[in-house]
Amino acid sequence: MKFPTPQTLESIAVIIGSDYVGEPSFPVFGMNEIHVVQPGDIVFVDHPKYYDKALQSQATVILINKKVDCPIGKALLISEDPFRDFNKLTRHFKPFQSANTAISETAEIGKGTLIQPNVFVGNNVKIGSNCLIYSNVCIYDNTVIGNNVTIHAGTVLGSDAFYYKNRPEKFDKLLSGGNVVIEDNVELGSLCSIDKGVTASTTIGEGSKLDNQVHVGHDTIIGKRCLIASQVGIAGCVLIGDFVTLWGQVGITSGITIGDRAVISGQSGVSKSLPGNQAYFGSPAEEFRKKYKELASIRLIPEIIEKLDKLS
Amino acid sequence: MKFPTPQTLESIAVIIGSDYVGEPSFPVFGMNEIHVVQPGDIVFVDHPKYYDKALQSQATVILINKKVDCPIGKALLISEDPFRDFNKLTRHFKPFQSANTAISETAEIGKGTLIQPNVFVGNNVKIGSNCLIYSNVCIYDNTVIGNNVTIHAGTVLGSDAFYYKNRPEKFDKLLSGGNVVIEDNVELGSLCSIDKGVTASTTIGEGSKLDNQVHVGHDTIIGKRCLIASQVGIAGCVLIGDFVTLWGQVGITSGITIGDRAVISGQSGVSKSLPGNQAYFGSPAEEFRKKYKELASIRLIPEIIEKLDKLS
Amino acid sequence: MKFPTPQTLESIAVIIGSDYVGEPSFPVFGMNEIHVVQPGDIVFVDHPKYYDKALQSQATVILINKKVDCPIGKALLISEDPFRDFNKLTRHFKPFQSANTAISETAEIGKGTLIQPNVFVGNNVKIGSNCLIYSNVCIYDNTVIGNNVTIHAGTVLGSDAFYYKNRPEKFDKLLSGGNVVIEDNVELGSLCSIDKGVTASTTIGEGSKLDNQVHVGHDTIIGKRCLIASQVGIAGCVLIGDFVTLWGQVGITSGITIGDRAVISGQSGVSKSLPGNQAYFGSPAEEFRKKYKELASIRLIPEIIEKLDKLS
Repeated sequence: MKFPTPQTLESIAVIIGSDYVGEPSFPVFGMNEIHVVQPGDIVFVDHPKYYDKALQSQATVILINKKVDCPIGKALLISEDPFRDFNKLTRHFKPFQSANTAISETAEIGKGTLIQPNVFVGNNVKIGSNCLIYSNVCIYDNTVIGNNVTIHAGTVLGSDAFYYKNRPEKFDKLLSGGNVVIEDNVELGSLCSIDKGVTASTTIGEGSKLDNQVHVGHDTIIGKRCLIASQVGIAGCVLIGDFVTLWGQVGITSGITIGDRAVISGQSGVSKSLPGNQAYFGSPAEEFRKKYKELASIRLIPEIIEKLDKLS
Repeated sequence: MKFPTPQTLESIAVIIGSDYVGEPSFPVFGMNEIHVVQPGDIVFVDHPKYYDKALQSQATVILINKKVDCPIGKALLISEDPFRDFNKLTRHFKPFQSANTAISETAEIGKGTLIQPNVFVGNNVKIGSNCLIYSNVCIYDNTVIGNNVTIHAGTVLGSDAFYYKNRPEKFDKLLSGGNVVIEDNVELGSLCSIDKGVTASTTIGEGSKLDNQVHVGHDTIIGKRCLIASQVGIAGCVLIGDFVTLWGQVGITSGITIGDRAVISGQSGVSKSLPGNQAYFGSPAEEFRKKYKELASIRLIPEIIEKLDKLS
Repeated sequence: MKFPTPQTLESIAVIIGSDYVGEPSFPVFGMNEIHVVQPGDIVFVDHPKYYDKALQSQATVILINKKVDCPIGKALLISEDPFRDFNKLTRHFKPFQSANTAISETAEIGKGTLIQPNVFVGNNVKIGSNCLIYSNVCIYDNTVIGNNVTIHAGTVLGSDAFYYKNRPEKFDKLLSGGNVVIEDNVELGSLCSIDKGVTASTTIGEGSKLDNQVHVGHDTIIGKRCLIASQVGIAGCVLIGDFVTLWGQVGITSGITIGDRAVISGQSGVSKSLPGNQAYFGSPAEEFRKKYKELASIRLIPEIIEKLDKLS
């Protein structure tokens, strides 16, 4: 998430009411999560376990709850509660704005795009040309949709990230200041849910096709020309390569990577990153032939017991 | 489900056209299912296997298909078809009323609550203050929503219980006279389905957070501050404690209990009640370390076979 | 899919610009997929592996990419790209027509049928009498719904088949010219997705009941009085018999057959056809007792290892 205009270390410190380490004029361009940060970004960290990762990331401004040594060429924002102050910045730069009409006046809709009845299009949404948006689709604020995109009925683009900090008194929600990006020639089935990014863009790559009732979590990036069958659930911050095939009801845990051209069989549960150019199945998912042998070996147990009884 | 005004044994018998055992003026306040009945309630039973359970429950009026001995302090309604007559009472006291406008005039909506376009709000719905109801949410009649509740797009509250009696000629539906209750500070993701109770309230407890595409069956009660990830399916009449975590695509069968602070891994299938304060996984779900050892043991089978071959 | 008026071999060849083998006046009544073709239908085939199956099917006109011997009583349409030309015919005879109003003027709605706010009803939809269509349901063009049907909120009938040809440059979509047929006395839960057929009718048989969030793929036929619990996913071209029970989160792969009165436990994954009158579970699903023994045998592995160690 980039700020509408460039900020300085000092201007940010004023917004969140914090101390800082660095030049007051140190430039700050936006904020992001650790897996997508770039120079000019703020990243937040509130657990000593992750201090090093944050300090050594591409981010040049670290919002942190301890006055540590500042790496050269970077700056620190010292906060007693970085999570709260990260939310404060999201609220400041991306305030929630109600859309009172079904199609917001600030939405841009391309030539030849057809929008059926009962569709909701939020503020600052951009939809390309020659798209077909079926009835009752809900498109949250700031979503960007390319050309030749088809979205079937009831699908939701841009609901909030499912991301909470477990405080003693309540679940504290990390606000979502990111958006959803649907590239050209994508087709989405009916009743899919694509959450917006916390700071970045949840992205469905060019030419990918999703069947019905697929869930895609916040900040997940799906590559080009993927085929994703119905009822697949993909958690947040997942990176899926190009030409990947996921069959029905596959589940993918957060923060992992699936390589290009991987094929994952129906109902598989993926709990760790998987290299591309291979087939997988099972829950937990493993390489196809390995898992197949494992299943076959189970069927040998009665025979094993019989042999063992003869030996005893 | 309480009746709008207190009834008597005789007035109920007139409505369903049945005989009864007890004082005509015996008080009747409502009707309920066996797992939540209270004194003053009618419960129905039509199979000898469950007669004792119904007669000894907290219910004081038993709608039954046999003239059995009436327990002291209770009353009987004798019916040739208790299921049909229970439906007759639901139809009498909670008739379906069509809502012709998208936001019913009988709905009460609190201060500071924002309702986006294309939302449906049925009759007698109560929504508290400072709620945010995104577009295309459908809220059936009699739903009660607390304060500071967020509901993402396309979610449905109050669809009917999936509860049928398999008659020779058709599936006969048990009517749903209950409702849905969403307590304060709950957040529901997009495209969730929460069914109403048959007679009681399907309840999502204070501060609980549900991700997208979660299904919650009739009369299920979810405790406080639970975290339920996307595509979880919870059947009817389930009791889930407080601080429970269910990861993505977990399935939970009907009528069971999950203890406080249980944590259930993604894609697990829960087929029996589970004590709290433990982690579970697998389908069927079992205690985490036990299941983990089981999976590890499968990988030893090739080695076992090798050893056996050497011994033979 | 039947054409609005009977065609001839020559008139079809003109539309797609192809050569043909047979009498110019050879009658052509419609087009269909291989598993449901009838005499008078066109079937397409573009892979030598399937030539024989297509040529020997009930179809009397074969749209094919090689000039093979024409079976007696049949005709051929010779095309360099049968997939493309099949789409050309669908586009010609079933062009997509936008519906600008929420309830199309060409829809027929029976007596006593209640349609709640925010429902979308497309062109040429037929809905019988005494139906109850809850809010935000989306009914695509040409859907046919019987009498006494209940459809809960947010359900989508008639989204496109998930069917693509993987061309070097893109996924090429097979157009859907079929529809959805919901027979009498069916009840559909909330947020279900029923895709239309490619050429035939995706059908839910008389008296069947579906819970929430069920997905049914294109051209699948579900028999009479089936019970399908929530979050079940059924792929395309599946044939499900009568009185079948599928419990929650079951997944069924494309093109298979499930026999009458089969019962499949929750979370099972069905990857091959299953005979009726039996219970199944597991992923992959197998006969209940067999699978149960398999699971039990896994628990014996530690004991096996112990015995083996004593013997060594």
